[in-house]
Amino acid sequence: MRNVIVGQSGGPTAVINASLAGVFTMAKKCGADKVYGMRNGIQGLLAGQYVELDGILKSDREIELLKKTPASFLGSCRFKLPDFEKDKETYEKIFATLKELEIAAFIYIGGNDSMDTIRKLADYAELTGSDIKFVGAPKTIDNDLAQTDHTPGFGSAAKYVATAVREAIRDEVVYSTQKTIYVVEVMGRNAGWLTAATALSRGQGCPGPDLIYLPESDFDMADFDARIEALLQKKNNLLIAVSEGIHDSKGTFICEYAAADKAVDAFGHKQMGGTAAFLASYCEKFKAKTRAIELSTLQRSAAHIASLTDVNEAFASGGAAVKAALEGKNGLMACFDRLSDEPYVCTISLKDVHQIANDERCVPKEWITEGGTDVSEDFIRYARPLIIGESYPLMVDGIPAHLVLED
Amino acid sequence: MRNVIVGQSGGPTAVINASLAGVFTMAKKCGADKVYGMRNGIQGLLAGQYVELDGILKSDREIELLKKTPASFLGSCRFKLPDFEKDKETYEKIFATLKELEIAAFIYIGGNDSMDTIRKLADYAELTGSDIKFVGAPKTIDNDLAQTDHTPGFGSAAKYVATAVREAIRDEVVYSTQKTIYVVEVMGRNAGWLTAATALSRGQGCPGPDLIYLPESDFDMADFDARIEALLQKKNNLLIAVSEGIHDSKGTFICEYAAADKAVDAFGHKQMGGTAAFLASYCEKFKAKTRAIELSTLQRSAAHIASLTDVNEAFASGGAAVKAALEGKNGLMACFDRLSDEPYVCTISLKDVHQIANDERCVPKEWITEGGTDVSEDFIRYARPLIIGESYPLMVDGIPAHLVLED
Repeated sequence: MRNVIVGQSGGPTAVINASLAGVFTMAKKCGADKVYGMRNGIQGLLAGQYVELDGILKSDREIELLKKTPASFLGSCRFKLPDFEKDKETYEKIFATLKELEIAAFIYIGGNDSMDTIRKLADYAELTGSDIKFVGAPKTIDNDLAQTDHTPGFGSAAKYVATAVREAIRDEVVYSTQKTIYVVEVMGRNAGWLTAATALSRGQGCPGPDLIYLPESDFDMADFDARIEALLQKKNNLLIAVSEGIHDSKGTFICEYAAADKAVDAFGHKQMGGTAAFLASYCEKFKAKTRAIELSTLQRSAAHIASLTDVNEAFASGGAAVKAALEGKNGLMACFDRLSDEPYVCTISLKDVHQIANDERCVPKEWITEGGTDVSEDFIRYARPLIIGESYPLMVDGIPAHLVLED
Repeated sequence: MRNVIVGQSGGPTAVINASLAGVFTMAKKCGADKVYGMRNGIQGLLAGQYVELDGILKSDREIELLKKTPASFLGSCRFKLPDFEKDKETYEKIFATLKELEIAAFIYIGGNDSMDTIRKLADYAELTGSDIKFVGAPKTIDNDLAQTDHTPGFGSAAKYVATAVREAIRDEVVYSTQKTIYVVEVMGRNAGWLTAATALSRGQGCPGPDLIYLPESDFDMADFDARIEALLQKKNNLLIAVSEGIHDSKGTFICEYAAADKAVDAFGHKQMGGTAAFLASYCEKFKAKTRAIELSTLQRSAAHIASLTDVNEAFASGGAAVKAALEGKNGLMACFDRLSDEPYVCTISLKDVHQIANDERCVPKEWITEGGTDVSEDFIRYARPLIIGESYPLMVDGIPAHLVLED
């Protein structure tokens, strides 16, 4: 019984498949017989949907292509595992399937909610004396997991966001004779890491965003007005970066001022969006030409400009997770520990998933400056190494080739 | 008197500066003494704003960096030159400045409106016996200039659009267990070339867009409904590509159904936008999770994934334009003549700008298929060669470096 099963969960990133490639490669190196992939995470597993990865990742070529393919190769889900006290049946079903497949190690690549799944399954295994081991590999563009210096997916999204903002500023300033305001909306419900990454666009002649609003600070419309007025006295072309999750001191999301009713997802998270559109429209009062730019799914799936550091770290963390599980460790997540910013040195350690699941790590208050409208050099020193290096796609017919799982 | 002056006008592209680099390099090769750049096109020239490029493009390094910098290095304008019968003064002012700068060749890099400027200035020069020569270099992501096989800027925008759509589809299908509809909005007011380029995402396991709507066809809501219904019977995840300029048979823009009053620019063009947002919202009635993705300025300024073919052709067309002008030719534009799709062979010839200015070249009706919801293989054969080859940016600190003109 040396089989491995791996699943991917939550929102896409550019490198979640590099983690998968790392799990597969290390599992085989550690002597795993078969490596199974859950289709659509735990939800697919519950429906008996899985594939044998050995038949798919046949050579180095497929593994390299997988590393450069964005968004979950195996499909994803947003499925909240019930507490086992409340729904033992679901657990029995999962464990019966794992037993049938002779699974020794169960690896889940995902964010907070996925680590909650690992925590529950690991606890249930301990409780029932199962010898199946459950270990998580981190993944989220939001960079909001606790106990780890950063998360795979963030570096590539940050590289895209910084590049897109620098290119947008180049685009905007061509009409330097007229007043313009571009509002760029970045993903991040509660944690502003990715919005902060717009500051990485600065340098090499690029001024970067004029204002950066993170959800960690309360957004104040009167202060916003005053700052825009003052900036327009000095320059014609403004670019403002906002997190989708910015809110005022009453806790009302700014996008809610545009749209009253918004859906919630399976985890009860409010669906965001429309913040930039609302603010761009609002800014028309400054007699400027305004434009809302939502980076949308482009920021999380832009494997074409992935960070090589991020790709390599995702691969390594997947490998570390499965190695730990096959060594008999349970209820852990592979975490990054930074030894130094410059030169950038990072190691991986396995940490208790109970300290990670359902926690959320936000941008430290002391890294947010200018009355909540910018980030400090400390943030830049932290984020810069994560976007370094190129993972050029394999281009076929002029665009990036991906590895796609057939139905 | 062997000086050259060059200007850039209209909207940004990823390669408009490659054209500028071509003008500069060829001008020097042809023995030009000084090469001036107008700040913000003809509008800047009228205000006496220009720079000496010789002092800025000092070495091959600056020229290479310029070729990889998106959006007009010199700044742009949207300035419609009045007819000389109506406003002789403006012409006298322009020609006085050109005389003062000892200009032999005036090169304008731009689209339709810019070629209108070249036409008027060339005619005025002929009329008044001036020996200054006026030649245009084509530029527009819209690919809508007459008399040329294609325009620099289109290939890179098409490469970005095809890549973004392929990545968006990867992103979307991870939730294959739920119905989703992504609506991707592409620039193009009257010409659907760039929206059609979303079809280039097909292949290598990518199905491409399920529906592609160009402004060349009338959009019919009832037909749209029926097609979505039928598609959702077969698959859960749909991606629909729409041009910002799609309209119904009455000529009403689809985005106008969302927003009643929209501004017009200096040329009387209606400002577009919001088509995807409107349709995504509309599609909620299909009980699908919907998402609007506006590619916005990202598509025209994404030099980080520029087509090498496009960069090289932009450079060559700039060179051909200035060479022609310095050889005494007047009132022309550098045009591409395609000899073969495969192998792709294209030459450049100089054509009468009177046949180009104020004309508009749309996607041929016979290339639009499936009742106005797709494009043919003829389009693919036409567009594919234009997106081939990589022009990797010079990466500094993890993001693309640009050459920036200081104030």
